[in-house]
Amino acid sequence: MLRIDFANCLIPRVGVHGLDPARLATGSEDARAIAHLTQRLDQSRGTGWERWRLLPHELREEHVSACRALAEERRGRFENVLVLGIGGSALGNIALHAALNPPTWNLGEATERRSNGATKGNCRTGVPPVRPDGLPRLFVVDNVDPANFGAVLGACERLGGLEKTLVNVVSKSGETAETAAQFMILRDLLKQRLGERHAENVVAITDPAKGTMRSICDKEGYATLPVPNGVGGRFSVLSPVGLFSSAMVGIDIEALLDGAAAMDERCRKPELLENPAALLATLLVELAARKGKNNHVLMPYSNALYLLADWFRQLWAESLGKRFNTAGAEVFAGYTPIKALGTTDQHSQVQLYREGPNDKVIGFLEAEDFEGADVAIPSGLGVEALEYLEGKSMAALLSAEKRATEYALVESERPNFTIRFPRIDAHHVGEFIWLWQMATAYAGLMLGIDAYDQPAVELGKQATFGLMGRDGYNKHLEKVNATLVGTEWVV
Amino acid sequence: MLRIDFANCLIPRVGVHGLDPARLATGSEDARAIAHLTQRLDQSRGTGWERWRLLPHELREEHVSACRALAEERRGRFENVLVLGIGGSALGNIALHAALNPPTWNLGEATERRSNGATKGNCRTGVPPVRPDGLPRLFVVDNVDPANFGAVLGACERLGGLEKTLVNVVSKSGETAETAAQFMILRDLLKQRLGERHAENVVAITDPAKGTMRSICDKEGYATLPVPNGVGGRFSVLSPVGLFSSAMVGIDIEALLDGAAAMDERCRKPELLENPAALLATLLVELAARKGKNNHVLMPYSNALYLLADWFRQLWAESLGKRFNTAGAEVFAGYTPIKALGTTDQHSQVQLYREGPNDKVIGFLEAEDFEGADVAIPSGLGVEALEYLEGKSMAALLSAEKRATEYALVESERPNFTIRFPRIDAHHVGEFIWLWQMATAYAGLMLGIDAYDQPAVELGKQATFGLMGRDGYNKHLEKVNATLVGTEWVV
Repeated sequence: MLRIDFANCLIPRVGVHGLDPARLATGSEDARAIAHLTQRLDQSRGTGWERWRLLPHELREEHVSACRALAEERRGRFENVLVLGIGGSALGNIALHAALNPPTWNLGEATERRSNGATKGNCRTGVPPVRPDGLPRLFVVDNVDPANFGAVLGACERLGGLEKTLVNVVSKSGETAETAAQFMILRDLLKQRLGERHAENVVAITDPAKGTMRSICDKEGYATLPVPNGVGGRFSVLSPVGLFSSAMVGIDIEALLDGAAAMDERCRKPELLENPAALLATLLVELAARKGKNNHVLMPYSNALYLLADWFRQLWAESLGKRFNTAGAEVFAGYTPIKALGTTDQHSQVQLYREGPNDKVIGFLEAEDFEGADVAIPSGLGVEALEYLEGKSMAALLSAEKRATEYALVESERPNFTIRFPRIDAHHVGEFIWLWQMATAYAGLMLGIDAYDQPAVELGKQATFGLMGRDGYNKHLEKVNATLVGTEWVV
Repeated sequence: MLRIDFANCLIPRVGVHGLDPARLATGSEDARAIAHLTQRLDQSRGTGWERWRLLPHELREEHVSACRALAEERRGRFENVLVLGIGGSALGNIALHAALNPPTWNLGEATERRSNGATKGNCRTGVPPVRPDGLPRLFVVDNVDPANFGAVLGACERLGGLEKTLVNVVSKSGETAETAAQFMILRDLLKQRLGERHAENVVAITDPAKGTMRSICDKEGYATLPVPNGVGGRFSVLSPVGLFSSAMVGIDIEALLDGAAAMDERCRKPELLENPAALLATLLVELAARKGKNNHVLMPYSNALYLLADWFRQLWAESLGKRFNTAGAEVFAGYTPIKALGTTDQHSQVQLYREGPNDKVIGFLEAEDFEGADVAIPSGLGVEALEYLEGKSMAALLSAEKRATEYALVESERPNFTIRFPRIDAHHVGEFIWLWQMATAYAGLMLGIDAYDQPAVELGKQATFGLMGRDGYNKHLEKVNATLVGTEWVV
């Protein structure tokens, strides 16, 4: 299971920039507060916007069987899956695929499934990374950049054609402008090409009962899966929102939910030092409140885990970044989540992390085992300065670089922690997702804010409607144009 | 040419969180200070670590002709280019390719060059995005993650084979552990496959006179291009470091340097309001010093420009993140550069940017023209709530979303500015790179720090050597193990 090593967040390691370990010990004020919050979370579990907590439990069977059945029915008939969604309707899909399939998934043709199941490949043993036979390419388009959109569509045209492309549109309401625009274009192209039959090329994940997308689906006969009631976008990756596209590309969605359920059990313990989510939230909230560490870096030493940092960025920023607390006081709460990659960012960000303002907590992610993928560094170059690398493995170098960076940060009194993955697989990724969702719930309570709303996004939406000429939003257009009237302040 | 619109950084727009425009006016204290710094930069130009300033001028002809000649000689013989490098030896290469070639470059087979030169594709006009005939795929590997490395090598094996893969190793010294390890593996694989002939598959960009990689190249007969003296990694993208791989994938490197030279002329003007780099540095340094905006977000509304933000992250973080100023006083200078993407991050970060701590400046990048790539949103869906989108273009929606976000940030008194690209092409990307390199030089002087060193990176390197068993580094190993000794602080 995942482990969090947090010794480097404490005074013995990082001096005045760390927390006092006594504050975390059994019987301490913090530990008692956590027991109380755990009780509150047990009471609110499954109610209101905390229905996401039912995903690996009460809602699991229904979602898994629906996603599997639809994936099995459509798989084999399509060469490409094109996910249309944005924010919580895309970040989880992107992250799961990047974490659990090779980065070269879309390159080249699908080949037969290897008997050893090693889809990640190994450059020394000659097992090339492959996309197993029958599984489609996956493209997730979450922006309305026309050049990017056109390139992806062009690729689908060349690689099997739109006829062989399944459009998986993800939108609870159907009114998110970006997703709606993408969908209107794709639907039109498919309809021109396939007529009524185009419905076979669409799977919508949307509100089960109401809304614009619901009514489109009912009218056109598109297959649908639910965005469950009471599950907000940023907490939805383990619902059909993330599970359907994962199932299409061969990810073990049962293992994801097993991991989430296992982590859930740990995160319901009342004892701070036995509860990973409570501990993580305590570290980050207290290091911010007491030590001014408002910037929270997630730095995987793994390319596969890198895009989980984008999923984390939404969860942490949008849940906790709030002007008002639930009592109505202005607090401007929140932390800035930052995405980094080890070792790459050692050569980009670590100079700043060690010598710049001491305003960060750095969270490392580390895989303990790269299984069959590791590779030995050969001898024979005959250069003394590089002899120390000969016969070592690449994973050993990655691990040494991570430990060296951890050490260098400690030397500069910069708090950091490590989340260890025994392996990068669906079970542990499920644990990871649950860990942060639960930590967000705890942090929301600690800050006294509503972790489930996003009031500040509304104004931009209305302004966009105004600028795009939607009826009833002319006042917003006028306001935007008055506010941003042209000036001479241009160079 | 690029324009910076900075009205939203000023008091009239964002109140007490903005700068007083009077401070920037002709004759103001800031404007006089800039005139003085411009003079200092004119004097140091081309000396010490400011030799990068010669790249689009005195050094241009030599670099362009050498890169072109070698690229033309090798192009057509290879299906894949595999860049091995990290930090400044990779970030520029990645960013240029992402900015100027379609994201689907590596997908599928190269096809004939289209007569209209539209390599970016357009989903409505039926021009698929293609890789012009004779141009190779490009992979840049900047990490030592064995799973990622194995997947990329496996893809090269399947797509033409290692025999058809040109390894472009980029390392000034040859001793950067990550790049050395990658290179040792590739060299061994190539040598097993091709024997002596493998030298044809290697192009090294390294120190022209000395160092480990230099001696390897001399011994093995590898073709080389120079990392020019006095050009640090993070200022090297417009040297052969970035130009060679760009030339291999058809990027117009003359236009890049034209753009840089054109921006250089603007950035040598003594008048603050005529000098984009001086203005950018003044905004960011003063908003940090006077208003506490220490986090600097770069948020392109363009997928193509998104990875330029990673290049910027290194430049800004590593150059300005310094514990001591040049007088030896402890200052812990520096700003945290943050990468974001519009519209995508409107659904992830903008809630925080509007309601969280007011500690950021948001820099938007915007393309005024997507040329042939734009696409119209069709009518015919018959849904009233989405009618406002019908007949509009995707670029218009992107632009409206950006303007709406700008407006929403202003309403929350969050300073922001916009850098406008007339088009995304090599000339304007060259301007952009030069703008930030010059702004970094100005900011370094304003902060009184050395923008060209990276002293904090050294300790981690030594610790890595110790952990990897390199002779002479045992003391570092002991120190690391003593510092990070196992504890009970694990959950």
